[in-house]
Amino acid sequence: MAEIRQNPTTKDWVIIASERTKRPDDFKEPPSHSHLHEYRPDCPFCPGNEKLTPKAILVFPGNMAQGCQSEWSIRVVENKFPALLPQGTVERKRMGRFHLKMNGCGRHEVIIESPKHNATIGTLSDPEVEMILRAWRSRFLELGQDERIRLITLFRNHGLKAGTSLEHPHSQIVATPVLSSLIRQRMEEATRHLDTYGTCLFCDLLREEKKLQERVVLESEHFLAFVPYAPQATYETWVIPKTHKPSFGLIDDTEVIDLARNLNQILGIMYRRLNDPDYNLTLNTPPVREARQECCHWHIRILPRMSYLSGFELGSGIYITTTYPEEAAQFLRAAN
Amino acid sequence: MAEIRQNPTTKDWVIIASERTKRPDDFKEPPSHSHLHEYRPDCPFCPGNEKLTPKAILVFPGNMAQGCQSEWSIRVVENKFPALLPQGTVERKRMGRFHLKMNGCGRHEVIIESPKHNATIGTLSDPEVEMILRAWRSRFLELGQDERIRLITLFRNHGLKAGTSLEHPHSQIVATPVLSSLIRQRMEEATRHLDTYGTCLFCDLLREEKKLQERVVLESEHFLAFVPYAPQATYETWVIPKTHKPSFGLIDDTEVIDLARNLNQILGIMYRRLNDPDYNLTLNTPPVREARQECCHWHIRILPRMSYLSGFELGSGIYITTTYPEEAAQFLRAAN
Repeated sequence: MAEIRQNPTTKDWVIIASERTKRPDDFKEPPSHSHLHEYRPDCPFCPGNEKLTPKAILVFPGNMAQGCQSEWSIRVVENKFPALLPQGTVERKRMGRFHLKMNGCGRHEVIIESPKHNATIGTLSDPEVEMILRAWRSRFLELGQDERIRLITLFRNHGLKAGTSLEHPHSQIVATPVLSSLIRQRMEEATRHLDTYGTCLFCDLLREEKKLQERVVLESEHFLAFVPYAPQATYETWVIPKTHKPSFGLIDDTEVIDLARNLNQILGIMYRRLNDPDYNLTLNTPPVREARQECCHWHIRILPRMSYLSGFELGSGIYITTTYPEEAAQFLRAAN
Repeated sequence: MAEIRQNPTTKDWVIIASERTKRPDDFKEPPSHSHLHEYRPDCPFCPGNEKLTPKAILVFPGNMAQGCQSEWSIRVVENKFPALLPQGTVERKRMGRFHLKMNGCGRHEVIIESPKHNATIGTLSDPEVEMILRAWRSRFLELGQDERIRLITLFRNHGLKAGTSLEHPHSQIVATPVLSSLIRQRMEEATRHLDTYGTCLFCDLLREEKKLQERVVLESEHFLAFVPYAPQATYETWVIPKTHKPSFGLIDDTEVIDLARNLNQILGIMYRRLNDPDYNLTLNTPPVREARQECCHWHIRILPRMSYLSGFELGSGIYITTTYPEEAAQFLRAAN
């Protein structure tokens, strides 16, 4: 029997229909991306091709004495094909009676996470992942200084189905002068919870998941990882700091080290035990100007993309998954 | 220069970044689905395999005298692997402090649109498409009678990237006992427009697009097709009735005939001139219990899926497209 469950952070519903895994399928999967080489000569992110990218904004040096094959371990560059450009103003202009527009003003940066073409979080070492998180924090804080910016979206696309166009491991950060109803809705629900119960929705969720244990994937000193009660995708996993901090910008060094280990562990399990699924990683953190709202509690969301979004999801806003979160969590926990 | 534009029906923003078409791409496209045969022996929707599907709910006979190769031209069946089942009640149950759930109760039907495995809207005849629309209307009205149903989502997935698992041309209809924030948000914006201006947002949009002409794809007696000012996807096209009718259930016979011709024409252009892109077609119509709300104005949305949604879209709720709607409309108009 299928079940319909509500996501308490959005009040949206998802359908869990385990029967649907038995559906026939006329299509072959696109080729996997897990058999890459360490170096690809035509890759703009591989060492030696630095001139193919815009000038670096931030470079972490490679420790060649420790066997690093490159002068850098992480490079942050402007996206060569940016969605938004730093120049310009952000006035809204009205076009005709209903339409608003503004300049495509903002920032779009790429964090090249490793010199190795075939590396990925989950197969890197913990200190390497830690460096990625340090780069994220550094750029996150810097971009938040721009008065025009309203929202910083940090994300990682792993694999074709997750929307990546380049294989080389990288994450991206896009700073926009606008918000969306998705972000507003999350803020509203968190605010309503705070106004109703006097407590942070995410602190409460964290406590509940810890108590129940059935959806917990792992717990460390500073983080809890769990499969949410109403996931949008099979094996969706949230990693949430145990200490209430509204914005990702407030993450401290001990949390960085702990989070690096957790992400590496969870994504390593998915890589090895779920056959390297495509996934998106997104950072949920409040809009720049609301970074101190006490209703917020930043966290990371790992969203495997093992199936394609269909007209049902896009038309209705309701998602269908095929695995019960409790079973998904049990699998990930056991694989740990 | 990129531009940020607001969708007036949701107040969400999209980024139009034409530079991004020049991005490199490590990945090959999955194989196209445009070279299928008229019959596939292992397809559960092909004639002769009727016993592989649940019993038909609705059958339109095939006119074998007119060369139809099958006893039926359209079959509507329950989905063999349904997301939801007709049995059960829809009380919401609270689990622990925050979580709500209910039975996976609802309906999930498949409209097998043609006996031909390789047919699709765009290559069928106008009368054949008309029959599909009649099947849609019939099932839409019938499912709306169930007191437990809150939302009817009618959609068509064409191609792998659009989330289809079977090649044979079909559309689906899912009736859910819940709504989503996406649907609520659209209702709210339409209500706000009506409360502010005293007029229907969609009637006003229609008038504006007709006046400007620059985003119009085609116009017929009863419908206008245009590329929206702030599309979520390149070549996104809306087909909207000129007569204000809140719900799709109110479509009349002359509109059915006209809409069939329009859909066939637009999807035919996409098939021939855009190399048969994957797409979703969704029906935007108010929730069942709000079917008479005067702020609503049903329409059809064709959403080509030429790229994959990435962590940016999923994390931020902001979409990036690479073609200006005015250029997309010009191309589709010229190809007509």
